[in-house]
Amino acid sequence: MALSTTQAAEISAQRDITTPTRRDVAPALEEMLYKAFPVLDHGFIRVIDYMGTDSAIVQAARVSYGKGTRKVNEDAGLINYLMRHRHTTPFEMCEIKFHIKLPIFIARQWIRHRTANVNEYSGRYSIMDKEFYVPAPEQLAAQSQSNRQGRGNTLEGEEAQRVLELLQQDATQAYGHYEEMLNEDVVGNVIDENKTGLARELARMNLTLNYYTQWYWKIDLQNLMHFLSLRADSHAQYEIRVYAELMLDMLKAWVPLTHAAFMDYRVGGASISSKGLGIVKRLIAGENVSQEQSGLSKGEWRELMITLGREA
Amino acid sequence: MALSTTQAAEISAQRDITTPTRRDVAPALEEMLYKAFPVLDHGFIRVIDYMGTDSAIVQAARVSYGKGTRKVNEDAGLINYLMRHRHTTPFEMCEIKFHIKLPIFIARQWIRHRTANVNEYSGRYSIMDKEFYVPAPEQLAAQSQSNRQGRGNTLEGEEAQRVLELLQQDATQAYGHYEEMLNEDVVGNVIDENKTGLARELARMNLTLNYYTQWYWKIDLQNLMHFLSLRADSHAQYEIRVYAELMLDMLKAWVPLTHAAFMDYRVGGASISSKGLGIVKRLIAGENVSQEQSGLSKGEWRELMITLGREA
Amino acid sequence: MALSTTQAAEISAQRDITTPTRRDVAPALEEMLYKAFPVLDHGFIRVIDYMGTDSAIVQAARVSYGKGTRKVNEDAGLINYLMRHRHTTPFEMCEIKFHIKLPIFIARQWIRHRTANVNEYSGRYSIMDKEFYVPAPEQLAAQSQSNRQGRGNTLEGEEAQRVLELLQQDATQAYGHYEEMLNEDVVGNVIDENKTGLARELARMNLTLNYYTQWYWKIDLQNLMHFLSLRADSHAQYEIRVYAELMLDMLKAWVPLTHAAFMDYRVGGASISSKGLGIVKRLIAGENVSQEQSGLSKGEWRELMITLGREA
Amino acid sequence: MALSTTQAAEISAQRDITTPTRRDVAPALEEMLYKAFPVLDHGFIRVIDYMGTDSAIVQAARVSYGKGTRKVNEDAGLINYLMRHRHTTPFEMCEIKFHIKLPIFIARQWIRHRTANVNEYSGRYSIMDKEFYVPAPEQLAAQSQSNRQGRGNTLEGEEAQRVLELLQQDATQAYGHYEEMLNEDVVGNVIDENKTGLARELARMNLTLNYYTQWYWKIDLQNLMHFLSLRADSHAQYEIRVYAELMLDMLKAWVPLTHAAFMDYRVGGASISSKGLGIVKRLIAGENVSQEQSGLSKGEWRELMITLGREA
Repeated sequence: MALSTTQAAEISAQRDITTPTRRDVAPALEEMLYKAFPVLDHGFIRVIDYMGTDSAIVQAARVSYGKGTRKVNEDAGLINYLMRHRHTTPFEMCEIKFHIKLPIFIARQWIRHRTANVNEYSGRYSIMDKEFYVPAPEQLAAQSQSNRQGRGNTLEGEEAQRVLELLQQDATQAYGHYEEMLNEDVVGNVIDENKTGLARELARMNLTLNYYTQWYWKIDLQNLMHFLSLRADSHAQYEIRVYAELMLDMLKAWVPLTHAAFMDYRVGGASISSKGLGIVKRLIAGENVSQEQSGLSKGEWRELMITLGREA
Repeated sequence: MALSTTQAAEISAQRDITTPTRRDVAPALEEMLYKAFPVLDHGFIRVIDYMGTDSAIVQAARVSYGKGTRKVNEDAGLINYLMRHRHTTPFEMCEIKFHIKLPIFIARQWIRHRTANVNEYSGRYSIMDKEFYVPAPEQLAAQSQSNRQGRGNTLEGEEAQRVLELLQQDATQAYGHYEEMLNEDVVGNVIDENKTGLARELARMNLTLNYYTQWYWKIDLQNLMHFLSLRADSHAQYEIRVYAELMLDMLKAWVPLTHAAFMDYRVGGASISSKGLGIVKRLIAGENVSQEQSGLSKGEWRELMITLGREA
Repeated sequence: MALSTTQAAEISAQRDITTPTRRDVAPALEEMLYKAFPVLDHGFIRVIDYMGTDSAIVQAARVSYGKGTRKVNEDAGLINYLMRHRHTTPFEMCEIKFHIKLPIFIARQWIRHRTANVNEYSGRYSIMDKEFYVPAPEQLAAQSQSNRQGRGNTLEGEEAQRVLELLQQDATQAYGHYEEMLNEDVVGNVIDENKTGLARELARMNLTLNYYTQWYWKIDLQNLMHFLSLRADSHAQYEIRVYAELMLDMLKAWVPLTHAAFMDYRVGGASISSKGLGIVKRLIAGENVSQEQSGLSKGEWRELMITLGREA
Repeated sequence: MALSTTQAAEISAQRDITTPTRRDVAPALEEMLYKAFPVLDHGFIRVIDYMGTDSAIVQAARVSYGKGTRKVNEDAGLINYLMRHRHTTPFEMCEIKFHIKLPIFIARQWIRHRTANVNEYSGRYSIMDKEFYVPAPEQLAAQSQSNRQGRGNTLEGEEAQRVLELLQQDATQAYGHYEEMLNEDVVGNVIDENKTGLARELARMNLTLNYYTQWYWKIDLQNLMHFLSLRADSHAQYEIRVYAELMLDMLKAWVPLTHAAFMDYRVGGASISSKGLGIVKRLIAGENVSQEQSGLSKGEWRELMITLGREA
């Protein structure tokens, strides 16, 4: 990611202004505000705004007239209780807004989370930036043999080299033709006075799915945690997981008590089925259980053993 | 509405604290923050928190790196354009949170707007306050004869007096029996040591629908305007309309450019059907059109004439 | 619940008509269609319509051109996999619509689930039915001493008798005064020609919260399961749990493979925190762990022991 | 669009089966069920399932025990009333499910409508079809000069020819390299035994945005109409408008009374601002109003004149 000088100056100007407010303030998140934190080769996440802190959760859970908070350990206890019992509505009382730059094929996964507000940079109105994603060599993974949605070993040598060349070449060529069809270059200058230029809403279809787009994305804390529990998970595609992992740091700066409860109950926790609980009880009782006797499918058995830290 | 001394002190304490923030600040709304603005006989609205101002709308519409705002009249022009063309997503980038006290039968209407976050005071856990709504005498309207959902003339004399007495009496009696069933008074003191007391989640069913409840209610600006366009409308029930009207003032303090556009395009504007437009064109052409010739139903004709400020 | 003769005849007439369709059909649910299944003293649930069966889930997961289903055990395996891995979108492809009669204080809990479509009988337009809920004597529970939201022992003797009398008396009186204020009886006859009658939207506020209301409620299968996982749970209030339990039977008739997976992975399963998993591993390893050594709060320890079927 | 023989056979097999149901049936929509109606060069829309008909709207609005319908003209009157007064909840009681094949750049616009359920064909698991969109020559529009989001004149001659060639060439090349990186052809055969093949979730990023994707898309009638009011509008991009226009025909087959009301009140109607209404009144009064005197911006004046069928 390289911000233009203008962009860096705009960000810096916004960071320089502080104004007094009566609202709840999250100091550690204020420190991050507006900064562009890099992700992948050209992407970033910026925190643009937020509403509420851990206090707001406690305050709403108590429907209080004042701050509603007591001692820190009482507040932490309440937040843990809410998280454990899936009392989700107090967490909806906090809101956060990001500016995110990300490859289109990742944006297509991301947008499937419908409980957020989005304003995306429009390729109907504007010329798309000439920035596309090419994986780092160590991310050039093969299709997993055991798992239809996962990645296997890393490609090596000539095969890896060839993939990088193809991605570079096709994306570069597509952009060149995009400009030619538009009859405009990236900053909007007409290329050939004798040509008309194709409408932007049409020319963009020639770009490849690794081109970067950007959007403002606003979501409440409850739905953000749901997004993160799916996308910071090891089953998520690497290219979206890196965004989610950075957001976990931002979550910690924003609502540290909620972050701790979230890591314990959601990210590090597990759901176990009725049959799975039966097996856990037998194991605790000292019984030796095998997959064949378990009543579980092989896949489910393997997942349960991973959860319990045992060899499958 | 009478806040307790403790409540007033909690509110005052919150208002006294200001902290510097890098976020966008709406000065006129800061002035209102946390204050309880009275509605009906015991209700109120308090603004608890907000995210964004008119700038945030412009910034998101432009997916900008900095503030994104230009001259005030350019920003106003953009906001008007967005409102007129129903480009709704930039308005979703602002958020507001209220603490509201309102009668249960109004809460039941209100909650039908699903695109908000809610934390309600719980009658399962807590004892309900002894506060119920009784209409002011000038609001004791009869059923409308022409409109199944509206109000007609005001009741008068003995009939009005009798209604007020019945409402007072039944609500008061219901609360007395609520306490008796709970075997607790309003502050939680046990009444009779020899009795067990009914569970709160059950005893509450004896209260009448004019008892007040309260909730934290958080919504984005776009959905707030949708709520207000329905509930500040003359067809809305008076008891919810008074809340909506107060919220219009808060909207103005928060996002004045958006408020102006909203009043012009939504609150003061009208939707006209295809057939209705045909009649408008004929009227402009100087033709004399009657309901019988119009192809409109009587109801639709009457509504169109009201929109056009003509006699039906 | 007593349906009027007219209502019973209307239901019967709808059940008598069958029409050929090319759509997916769920025979066991067709058998239930339109029937009023009683709940509590005057409530009911009726299934009015549905879209899709287990097949529709498989078909959508495969984005297939045809039915998409294979052998029953393959379909079951896929549905189990989707449920286990929280791939929720295929379950959203089925939809169901109910007609439900329920007490207002339960309707107020129910409506908090926002991801459904609702049309409620309107007390602004229509006269409310004279039907209110009075708990069966064995449901007259005291407030739980250990759990702020639960019920404790059942009230007995005179105290129980008094509660039943108060509920009966206050609800009956409130309805009498409701009619008097309306100046209409339950079927809409004017009571006193010399009086005007209060608007329906106002008079209804005098009714108590145990009066029954009714609504059409439509929801997709994924969100229905979320509702049921919360409301068929032992922590849910009895008066909503009985509705949820009846719906579990309807779920089984509609989508038997999904029902089986749901009972295994959700209803009978459990979420265990990161710390909790650490303790499970120590227990399996034969270690003796006490609450004090566990790092868990007392509440969390007790809940974990219940999950593992051990004494706390 | 060319369905494979297998696909055509699967569709045909589903159409051949009819089963009796007690549910509401829409005969004209049954006739269309499962058929692939072509859109653009390789896209289609198929109706897969539906719930409810015009009757279901009436039934829900009346919260009835039976069908709830009366005479056709009474039902039409009620549906018109609901549409005119934006009583939207009864329209949410109908649901429809489509299978849609569409170019990715259009899918990205489409998915912004969040109130629908979606299952998309996954390029993480499966190999994408080799089908991409190339506009018909008469759709090769230039960027509009007057309207930042619109299309202007059609490209002609060599410039048009060149655009078509570039689109063909880049998409074809991208797919060839996609196969090479996967080391698999379109039906999954390994190309070179000595190579590993890149993971599908990565290789797909090399495809251009005009490649077709497909999804199951399910939505309620109210939200479908909202989608159609935006996407069948003349301001919508041509490539999404053709889908919306075909859906209008399907809407008519499904719920003819609602379709008629929708065409009159939404598609053919207009929203007029408060200021705009003032001008309409002056025009009806015979006054001559110019843009300069109007208080409207030029853009707004032009739009009002178009609405009123007058020269701007």
